[in-house]
Amino acid sequence: KNSGRLLINCPDQPGIVSSVTQFLHKNEANIIESNQYTTDPQDGKFFMRIEFDSPRLPEKEEELRKDFHSIAEQFDMTWTLKGAYDVKKTAIFCSKELHCLRELLLEWQSGDLITDIGLVVSNHEDCRELVESFNLPFYHIPSNKDIRKQVEEKQLALLEEYEIDLIVLARYMQILTPEFVAAHPFKIINIHHSFLPAFIGANPHKRAYERGVKLIGATSHYVTNDLDEGPIIEQDIMRVDHRDSIDDLKKMGRTIERSVLARGVKWHLEDRLIVHENKTIVF
Amino acid sequence: KNSGRLLINCPDQPGIVSSVTQFLHKNEANIIESNQYTTDPQDGKFFMRIEFDSPRLPEKEEELRKDFHSIAEQFDMTWTLKGAYDVKKTAIFCSKELHCLRELLLEWQSGDLITDIGLVVSNHEDCRELVESFNLPFYHIPSNKDIRKQVEEKQLALLEEYEIDLIVLARYMQILTPEFVAAHPFKIINIHHSFLPAFIGANPHKRAYERGVKLIGATSHYVTNDLDEGPIIEQDIMRVDHRDSIDDLKKMGRTIERSVLARGVKWHLEDRLIVHENKTIVF
Amino acid sequence: KNSGRLLINCPDQPGIVSSVTQFLHKNEANIIESNQYTTDPQDGKFFMRIEFDSPRLPEKEEELRKDFHSIAEQFDMTWTLKGAYDVKKTAIFCSKELHCLRELLLEWQSGDLITDIGLVVSNHEDCRELVESFNLPFYHIPSNKDIRKQVEEKQLALLEEYEIDLIVLARYMQILTPEFVAAHPFKIINIHHSFLPAFIGANPHKRAYERGVKLIGATSHYVTNDLDEGPIIEQDIMRVDHRDSIDDLKKMGRTIERSVLARGVKWHLEDRLIVHENKTIVF
Amino acid sequence: KNSGRLLINCPDQPGIVSSVTQFLHKNEANIIESNQYTTDPQDGKFFMRIEFDSPRLPEKEEELRKDFHSIAEQFDMTWTLKGAYDVKKTAIFCSKELHCLRELLLEWQSGDLITDIGLVVSNHEDCRELVESFNLPFYHIPSNKDIRKQVEEKQLALLEEYEIDLIVLARYMQILTPEFVAAHPFKIINIHHSFLPAFIGANPHKRAYERGVKLIGATSHYVTNDLDEGPIIEQDIMRVDHRDSIDDLKKMGRTIERSVLARGVKWHLEDRLIVHENKTIVF
Repeated sequence: KNSGRLLINCPDQPGIVSSVTQFLHKNEANIIESNQYTTDPQDGKFFMRIEFDSPRLPEKEEELRKDFHSIAEQFDMTWTLKGAYDVKKTAIFCSKELHCLRELLLEWQSGDLITDIGLVVSNHEDCRELVESFNLPFYHIPSNKDIRKQVEEKQLALLEEYEIDLIVLARYMQILTPEFVAAHPFKIINIHHSFLPAFIGANPHKRAYERGVKLIGATSHYVTNDLDEGPIIEQDIMRVDHRDSIDDLKKMGRTIERSVLARGVKWHLEDRLIVHENKTIVF
Repeated sequence: KNSGRLLINCPDQPGIVSSVTQFLHKNEANIIESNQYTTDPQDGKFFMRIEFDSPRLPEKEEELRKDFHSIAEQFDMTWTLKGAYDVKKTAIFCSKELHCLRELLLEWQSGDLITDIGLVVSNHEDCRELVESFNLPFYHIPSNKDIRKQVEEKQLALLEEYEIDLIVLARYMQILTPEFVAAHPFKIINIHHSFLPAFIGANPHKRAYERGVKLIGATSHYVTNDLDEGPIIEQDIMRVDHRDSIDDLKKMGRTIERSVLARGVKWHLEDRLIVHENKTIVF
Repeated sequence: KNSGRLLINCPDQPGIVSSVTQFLHKNEANIIESNQYTTDPQDGKFFMRIEFDSPRLPEKEEELRKDFHSIAEQFDMTWTLKGAYDVKKTAIFCSKELHCLRELLLEWQSGDLITDIGLVVSNHEDCRELVESFNLPFYHIPSNKDIRKQVEEKQLALLEEYEIDLIVLARYMQILTPEFVAAHPFKIINIHHSFLPAFIGANPHKRAYERGVKLIGATSHYVTNDLDEGPIIEQDIMRVDHRDSIDDLKKMGRTIERSVLARGVKWHLEDRLIVHENKTIVF
Repeated sequence: KNSGRLLINCPDQPGIVSSVTQFLHKNEANIIESNQYTTDPQDGKFFMRIEFDSPRLPEKEEELRKDFHSIAEQFDMTWTLKGAYDVKKTAIFCSKELHCLRELLLEWQSGDLITDIGLVVSNHEDCRELVESFNLPFYHIPSNKDIRKQVEEKQLALLEEYEIDLIVLARYMQILTPEFVAAHPFKIINIHHSFLPAFIGANPHKRAYERGVKLIGATSHYVTNDLDEGPIIEQDIMRVDHRDSIDDLKKMGRTIERSVLARGVKWHLEDRLIVHENKTIVF
């Protein structure tokens, strides 16, 4: 297709939208969807995402980017302009709980997640059959705290080999080193099985049970070096009551985790997420 | 304040956003919020709402409108440009059920609904005390099918006297004549106590009970001459079960009706609603 | 396990619960979960579901039933008493849309749906690969209006051969004959892709789009001879807006359909559903 | 009316339900609603709430209680049996934010909260007009950390004078002393404006904003001496996004706080809440 996406952030000031839309108009680009947000009309930061159609975009893409440079400089923009056909490559990391992996594979298969799934990595064999039934490469890399460095070296090599753009931790349950995280800034999405910032860390369902909450939740977020403290992408909840055991919470939680992770991944793949001061703007 | 709103609709074509934002930029207007929607990138209809700040807007408003004429003509626009300080005048019609009226009065009092409430009209005396405790004029106009014409004449005279912009039917329970409706196109908001188009007409809770639904709802919509068929503004639902009697449904329904009507009225007052082909665009 | 379920309905009158619980106590049955409901304390109908544990239930089951007869007669009860280990056999019918089938298979595989899936039947080949990857028998029975009778004969023969207790229409899209329905009273669960009774019949998403609703829904219900008029089991909804196309509604609808159908099937398998006057009691 | 409520908790063991229902049957009590819960079928704790009708209950009440003693002793029960006509007396404490107070007064006026509101106490004058418009006694008791002891002495005297059974902190914003709390065990309900245990303590909306959550919540809970750590009664949430300021969160939060507090109070007044190990059982 001839559909492209322009993402911009810069200091807010008069004339940005006017200049950008003039540029697109001059280049025969028809705006399909446009979102903008200013942190503060006075000296705030400005963010914009425009989805547009332009005839023969694949051929003209490079030139468009060249032309946009002068506008970008004038407003001191950080920006990207690329074709929607330029599909991201995804790696999925998982462990023994397969519901999130399954959801991603099914959504991908049915065309709702537009990405190339390069490979699936796990520290267990449990998902091999599932992954291979989708004709995807599976790598079993056993892991524990003592060999974390070697494990991550193997993983990093694979991510490079497959030219991965996005890493999805689909209940991976292993903590990544700062080096690993630093190598993929805001390119790693995790699903945490609680309504953050409640129940940061291990065993959130057990702790939710003990606290006697009436709703349980799940949170998809970008991974940073502060455990479960990265920018939140999406959250949802489900009603529980006193009759529900820890196991019930786990089962019910799966349904929320699946959809909260899938939505977060979808938005990332569509370039709808912008990180600003440890928060996400969702366009 | 110096905040204004520009609303536009016109045939979609390249260059609209560019021209409009250039115009605002030239007139020192800073865009606060901007929403747009195209029914179809090919030959569709284009809708836009821009909220902006511009120094000394009240003095310049008239001039801005004059200047905008040439752009509007070029793109064949239907449009309005006015100050957010130009507060709408509202009339509330109610009957014996007061929960929706109460919600509107409280939201208005707490500053969440920005409007001048001109008067409250009812075919019963039940709400007089409540209305007068807010120091608002109350008019009791008894009504029935046989005297509908005379009743509406009195009402129309009051609406004119108070220069009313918006009529809210807060569980008014009377059907308006085509003449009354025609005199206020998309200026009358009703709350229907079901999830439309389910249970159009009378006694929706009774019929919901008999059908055994597991969710009940409420719908705020603009009134047209087709009963309960006008453009839907907002809807919401609540979970019910086999234990709930018709009376329980009515009680639970009140909570949804209150908030669904209040949200709809708020959006109308903020010029966020555009009607297109019997649907609403909510910006 | 030694877990059993007692389901009762009878005219309401004093002493029922007392007699039933005395009976269970006498037979060393420990009540795990108990639900009851009376349509009306005066001359209403009484419904009860008790889940209990009793040592060596499989051996004693038959005897328990014999002993219960006198109580049942005294109160004019319709009742069943059986072991939870007595797992129901399920047939899934589907067509070209596979999301509901997938959900059921995955929930079954992960142990959340406790049933024996006997076979999957479809009028298309689309799901063969999926079904066979789960090592389940798949039958392709092409169907159209003209050969409905022959098709249903084949289906009925298969249902008998596999001793099926429950038929799930997982977006089967074919109308069943009164004969077929009559042969399986309240044993056929369908998923309708709207919030019933809104948008009964074909193309609910298209009609929801055209009406401009702000929420779309799905409904699982027992199949009767009135199209989409059978007892509602479960419903849920999702928020949509003016930007969403018919295709968007279809995609979003899939998520609701999956979970609304899976919940309905789960409750049926756990004997939590009782039909009374075209409504369900969900215990 | 002749409607009563029996609440029981005791060690789980065979025969409890049987004995209790026999007792009610013998005393011509018709069970209207019955809920039970066992923490664990093996050596767990058993809880039960039965709502029943019995002719001339007001006259027989005392005798019924006397008769129940032997059963209660046999099973080592903690229990209460009383008429639903025995309405609780409520005191509402508030401060400057009046939305929760308003909701309670309106729900009370419309008959949805069945209680006698004895008095309203505030450390500010803001709500005087509102309270007095409902013809209820209002006491203004200014408060600050240094005079907390004297303030609470006045409050305790009023609570005793008005024979108060339930204290509702409707955004009271003052911390109570352990002595005050100890004097009313599980008789004080507070509304916290976050989804506990997230954002315990002051300024939850500001902290929710800074963390960038996608849902905000509210929690009604019994007050204990651990701030915001008492048994949770009810919770609910609302969706927010990056556009919402702290003030927006506060406004949106009000809607949730109102309904979450009103539901919690309603359940307490209907004797539906049982506290067990810092959690609530909601029957």
